Amino acid sequence: MRHALLLLALLATAAASPPKKPVPQDAIDSARPADWKEIPADDLLVMTLDGGGKVVVQLAPAFAPVHAANIRRLAASDYWKGAAVYRVQDNYVAQWGIGDAVHPFPAGVVKLPPAEYWRSAKGLNVTPLGSSDSYAPRVGFAGGWPVALEKDGTANLTHCYGYVGVARDLAPDTGTGAELYAIIGNAPRALDRNIAVVGRVIQGIDLLSSLPRGSEKMGFFKGNAVARPIVSMVMASSLAPADRPRFEYLDDHSAAFARYLHLKANRNDDFFRFGWGGVDLCNAPVPVRPVPAHR
Amino acid sequence: MRHALLLLALLATAAASPPKKPVPQDAIDSARPADWKEIPADDLLVMTLDGGGKVVVQLAPAFAPVHAANIRRLAASDYWKGAAVYRVQDNYVAQWGIGDAVHPFPAGVVKLPPAEYWRSAKGLNVTPLGSSDSYAPRVGFAGGWPVALEKDGTANLTHCYGYVGVARDLAPDTGTGAELYAIIGNAPRALDRNIAVVGRVIQGIDLLSSLPRGSEKMGFFKGNAVARPIVSMVMASSLAPADRPRFEYLDDHSAAFARYLHLKANRNDDFFRFGWGGVDLCNAPVPVRPVPAHR
Repeated sequence: MRHALLLLALLATAAASPPKKPVPQDAIDSARPADWKEIPADDLLVMTLDGGGKVVVQLAPAFAPVHAANIRRLAASDYWKGAAVYRVQDNYVAQWGIGDAVHPFPAGVVKLPPAEYWRSAKGLNVTPLGSSDSYAPRVGFAGGWPVALEKDGTANLTHCYGYVGVARDLAPDTGTGAELYAIIGNAPRALDRNIAVVGRVIQGIDLLSSLPRGSEKMGFFKGNAVARPIVSMVMASSLAPADRPRFEYLDDHSAAFARYLHLKANRNDDFFRFGWGGVDLCNAPVPVRPVPAHR
Repeated sequence: MRHALLLLALLATAAASPPKKPVPQDAIDSARPADWKEIPADDLLVMTLDGGGKVVVQLAPAFAPVHAANIRRLAASDYWKGAAVYRVQDNYVAQWGIGDAVHPFPAGVVKLPPAEYWRSAKGLNVTPLGSSDSYAPRVGFAGGWPVALEKDGTANLTHCYGYVGVARDLAPDTGTGAELYAIIGNAPRALDRNIAVVGRVIQGIDLLSSLPRGSEKMGFFKGNAVARPIVSMVMASSLAPADRPRFEYLDDHSAAFARYLHLKANRNDDFFRFGWGGVDLCNAPVPVRPVPAHR
């Protein structure tokens, strides 16, 4: 109340007067149903936090197949019984899971996966971002994921906000997937090609980013304390069909996506008067939404 | 305990074996005392949150002098009595203050300041970042601040993590400084040159970034609810000398800063094996620290 009429509107799409200038959301809203691609239930890891909040992670088997397979196997077992979010470092990561040596791994888990830090760009149908990048010579999107492309013909997923990586110890360790982290600050892109990105949070990142920060070095907590216990971590495909969360992403080859990128790079609306003509890869997240109820 | 030995070390500077490869913190630690510049007490806004946590904002009068002067005048009055953090939007901003029309302004507050969204680059002694930027043709540092430079000879502060802007309504409003926001997610650089950046949080950004997100549109809260009441907002210069927080920043023309930038762009240590040869402006924050006790 106190502020009701006074609050600035940072993202305002104010009550229209003359023809409203388009904002990126308008491009997303203009997509045809066929432009939206459903994410397979076997790619969705559903974490239920103590207190009931749900975090949904979309795995990226096209980039980190062995790590994704490990995670599916761990989720199918009771490996994560007693798991917790046990590290929260400001402007960096929230990290969760259970260390490798605590429980025996279920059958099939690869204890030292290959370093799935990048892959061949062959077979990726890349939509260029069309803006410079501080790290890679070229960046864009492929199969609904942001990618950076090196001159040697390889491609890697990028550590954007909400992206999920596989915690590891020093090399040659590559992590198993038993411990994961999500980015909760400015995209730490220096991590790209140094660690396996295995997916992204598509629901509930705010539940991780708003956790209290750990008081100790690197965002750990004192003694046995954790930020939040985790009640369960299961694949959506293991849930009854009626209980499965369903999501879809916007095809990066669609006209709507091209318009979205253009508007992201050239803001000119009721609030933004200066358009830069460029946008950072992580500031143009691939639109993801729940599958509409009628589909 | 459960994880104690197992936790990956994302930023690990592991217990040394052979000669340890340098990390950016080593460059900072190598700075001479004269490389550190103390921030004037009249540039430090000290906010005390309900519960006792303190947030310190360093103002940037070289970039937004009228807004900085407004903030000093508001802080010297009791204008902010009853202020609160009243908006928290995930991966975007935490916003606080009191709307323009609630209390009368103290004398001297400029109700419609000039649009201090950029300034002439004249007089700025710029240290180039040396990496590409997705937005501006050139970026670097000046007087301890990250800056973007346009071809027209102007420069602007950038919306990096923790940076503080002046909330405003739609143009031609420019905001007074009575309501401020801090960035708590990936740097929303599209805001640059569209709104006045007036400083940065140099202590306590984690207190803002870990607040619960608002349930309503744009991160507002239902009804009269707020994320956190604010007990006081005063300039450090108004406190008794013994109670003043004191901070210093690393001179961007120092050799230590050059080495810091080099190491940020070329990670090669116990954890990072792939160096990109570039770094994003907002991933190379100007080092700021409390003034050591002996000075």
